[in-house]
Amino acid sequence: MTQQTTLSLEKEFLDYVKKMQHLNEAIGLMYWDLRTGAPKKGVEQRSEIIGTLSADMFAMSTSDEMKSYIDRLSKPEQADRLSDVTKKTLEEVKKEFERNAKIPPAEFKEYVILQSKAESVWEEAKNSSDFALFQPYLEKLVQFNKKFIEYWGYEGNRYNTLLDMYEPGVTVDILDEVFAKLRERIVPLLQKITESQKPETSFLFEHFPKDKQKEFSLHVLKDMGYDFDSGRLDETVHPFAIGLNPGDVRVTTKYMENDFRTAVFGTIHEGGHALYEQNISTELVGTPLATGTSMGIHESQSLFWENFVGRHKGFWKNHYSTLQQLGGQQFDRVELDDFYRAINIVEPSFIRIEADEMTYPLHIMVRYEIEKGLFNDEIEVKDLPRIWNEKMNEYLGVTPKNDAVGVLQDVHWSGGSFGYFPSYALGYIYAAQLKNAMLKDLPDFDELVESGNLTPIKEWFTAHIHQFGKMKKPIEILNDVTGEGLNPDYLIEYFEEKYSSIYSLNR
Amino acid sequence: MTQQTTLSLEKEFLDYVKKMQHLNEAIGLMYWDLRTGAPKKGVEQRSEIIGTLSADMFAMSTSDEMKSYIDRLSKPEQADRLSDVTKKTLEEVKKEFERNAKIPPAEFKEYVILQSKAESVWEEAKNSSDFALFQPYLEKLVQFNKKFIEYWGYEGNRYNTLLDMYEPGVTVDILDEVFAKLRERIVPLLQKITESQKPETSFLFEHFPKDKQKEFSLHVLKDMGYDFDSGRLDETVHPFAIGLNPGDVRVTTKYMENDFRTAVFGTIHEGGHALYEQNISTELVGTPLATGTSMGIHESQSLFWENFVGRHKGFWKNHYSTLQQLGGQQFDRVELDDFYRAINIVEPSFIRIEADEMTYPLHIMVRYEIEKGLFNDEIEVKDLPRIWNEKMNEYLGVTPKNDAVGVLQDVHWSGGSFGYFPSYALGYIYAAQLKNAMLKDLPDFDELVESGNLTPIKEWFTAHIHQFGKMKKPIEILNDVTGEGLNPDYLIEYFEEKYSSIYSLNR
Repeated sequence: MTQQTTLSLEKEFLDYVKKMQHLNEAIGLMYWDLRTGAPKKGVEQRSEIIGTLSADMFAMSTSDEMKSYIDRLSKPEQADRLSDVTKKTLEEVKKEFERNAKIPPAEFKEYVILQSKAESVWEEAKNSSDFALFQPYLEKLVQFNKKFIEYWGYEGNRYNTLLDMYEPGVTVDILDEVFAKLRERIVPLLQKITESQKPETSFLFEHFPKDKQKEFSLHVLKDMGYDFDSGRLDETVHPFAIGLNPGDVRVTTKYMENDFRTAVFGTIHEGGHALYEQNISTELVGTPLATGTSMGIHESQSLFWENFVGRHKGFWKNHYSTLQQLGGQQFDRVELDDFYRAINIVEPSFIRIEADEMTYPLHIMVRYEIEKGLFNDEIEVKDLPRIWNEKMNEYLGVTPKNDAVGVLQDVHWSGGSFGYFPSYALGYIYAAQLKNAMLKDLPDFDELVESGNLTPIKEWFTAHIHQFGKMKKPIEILNDVTGEGLNPDYLIEYFEEKYSSIYSLNR
Repeated sequence: MTQQTTLSLEKEFLDYVKKMQHLNEAIGLMYWDLRTGAPKKGVEQRSEIIGTLSADMFAMSTSDEMKSYIDRLSKPEQADRLSDVTKKTLEEVKKEFERNAKIPPAEFKEYVILQSKAESVWEEAKNSSDFALFQPYLEKLVQFNKKFIEYWGYEGNRYNTLLDMYEPGVTVDILDEVFAKLRERIVPLLQKITESQKPETSFLFEHFPKDKQKEFSLHVLKDMGYDFDSGRLDETVHPFAIGLNPGDVRVTTKYMENDFRTAVFGTIHEGGHALYEQNISTELVGTPLATGTSMGIHESQSLFWENFVGRHKGFWKNHYSTLQQLGGQQFDRVELDDFYRAINIVEPSFIRIEADEMTYPLHIMVRYEIEKGLFNDEIEVKDLPRIWNEKMNEYLGVTPKNDAVGVLQDVHWSGGSFGYFPSYALGYIYAAQLKNAMLKDLPDFDELVESGNLTPIKEWFTAHIHQFGKMKKPIEILNDVTGEGLNPDYLIEYFEEKYSSIYSLNR
């Protein structure tokens, strides 16, 4: 047989990759279904099926066939002739192949079993607020990840290898500088705020019927430009958005009748994620590039919509009367200004996922410093409860009353996800940088928000971020859009300006 | 290497088969999702994924690996040691393997393409009521199936091979006799009915709010013993029930605000299918045996619940007041007796899926005779419109006003499904036979229905039918339960008794 032409080899490779994406989409739908109303007696069997399909995907990503595609297509004489999409796809699968191939299969299997065991032990430990129960599992998870880092290699700092998995290009050096700046200016600002008078918030907790909340959520999603022909809104316990393909991006939310903020801001947040996934170029469908480029950039989209739009005064100038009509009588005697102050209350608390936008990055800082310490042998797992509480007190001025609302609150570590947390903070920082860049193209941003004309905002994001999917790395996007690298100053300035006004602080 | 032990070979085989079932369940969920609210812009991509997974399943069912399992496990020294479940599973996959393996791959591929093309042409032909458009495709589909019958072989009559795919054990000889009896006694009965006074039915078509219909549907499903922890009720265009596994069996229905019967009787019908799937022994999960044993037995369950329970006077003695409360004022001046007569109206019509229980088997008879004629070279495709209308007139006394409501009304033939229709009629016949057998164990059947205690009925079906899944063939079930073979007399007697009373006929 003669040598295979580049074109037919490329097509074969893309078909192989497409098959993996098909499995991934089927898994995604099963995941969505499990979380939006699958009958409970079918859950175990469905989880087994997700396991079967995931194992198939993993096998395909590490197969000899995959290796052969990578080897053949990486040869210079072939590589030059590949389309840009194929090149990037090859890069992605190669990275994954190498990551997976470097771990001895027996160790990986042991690790997977540990993960699943650790997650259920963590749940038990959290319920009984008993860190000692979880400690041996967390120790093993850290140990495994340290070994993996040795297999994978690292540059500069061992923790960098973990960070890179979620936010390619971000390192400890960068984050140290960023978090130092944040701490330096947010901590004193927070101090001033906690000494100021709190806004009145009791009306936030009055009864707001679920169906009316749903009506408002649908209304806002539509305003944002979310395409209901490419998605749907459902109810769940832990809200998420999921992009199965750009034509099917689903949002989920949770309605709490005694706190409408959960649904309203949750829907806007997930809607921000969904806009990203709905507007990825269809050219990328069938490749691993048809998704957000990183956790941090994804989070920048959800946070931008939630905070820069959803907590914008102009947004409520436009929507407050609708909310008043849909709610009970709770808003009848509340002026817009008071409403605005209430939904922007800043208050140190124990729980990350309930934190306001200003204290949120501080919660992340606690986790970042702990993870960095763990992987550089400066912190031991057994000391985590003490260290956690100390850091919480130092940055937020509060000490968790027990480990359930302290070191045990998040699921991430129990699944072996170390290096993930910083991407949440990066999302805030990116969002503020993007806002600054957007203002150059859309100087009338405030008017657009106030008039409800959000289309130019959505389109700006599509043009600069969404469409590219994973074709551009996060750092590339940031440079192309803002002309600079990661810079927390914009976020800090946003906080200082906004909250000095809301809390009438002397700056 | 030493020879593999039966036990490990058996386990390996069962794992292989389980993998296929996993794919099948994932496909099932995607199918359900597509029909209950999947965003329309994602449909094309999702269909492609269903195609990928279906192709995988097909490949596994005809693979060399499958052949090797079949060959090795079929050897007498192995076969004797297999568990009953494995034996039946082997039988199933062997049957499928042989059916698929006998068709040359190129021909099969051509056929699959034809099927998909024919379905869209049929839709067009139906919309424009233009049989000529569909004719060449139908001719080719028949031609292909004739060739397949030659490959597969047949006994007695070529059409038997097709019948056997849907209702193992049922033949032309059996059906000829059955349909002759039905025709002989139903046609004159229908004649008498059409000459009698029609019940008043206008109130059936008054406005009945959708959410109230849903409430009633949920209420009835619960009464039937449908387990909502193993299922859910959703809305769709063409209602169906789907068993993903016994812990996840979903019902769908359609609400028409100007005819509540669609949702009420549709839900009971699909609920009957669902009870079957929910109560299959969990021991069979992961094998192809964890589903109904045949189309006909499945239909017997849905029809039993729809007609023998749902159109029973006692059922409405129990439920009519609830329906009255939920409906508008349309039932205020309608007595129970009049309501009962209205929902049991018998009226010849053009459309099979809208037919009442008595004319329904006549619609099937038309299709049966045509299919039999086609595969025995006694009827040509080009003559179908004329033959269809003649037979409709002969059995039902009506002549379709065009081919859209005549020969083009059903999707089945466009997908190459010949031999499927008779199973609907068999469902009616089985249901009446089962009712007769049930009365021996539950002589107080009427009182149970009237008092709303439907549990013994459900449990009787589970004990005699549901639990076995495909472990028993339809004919075996019928013999075990009724002590006789297929016998249409019970259905005919049921019709004669019920409708003589409703229409005050002289018998």
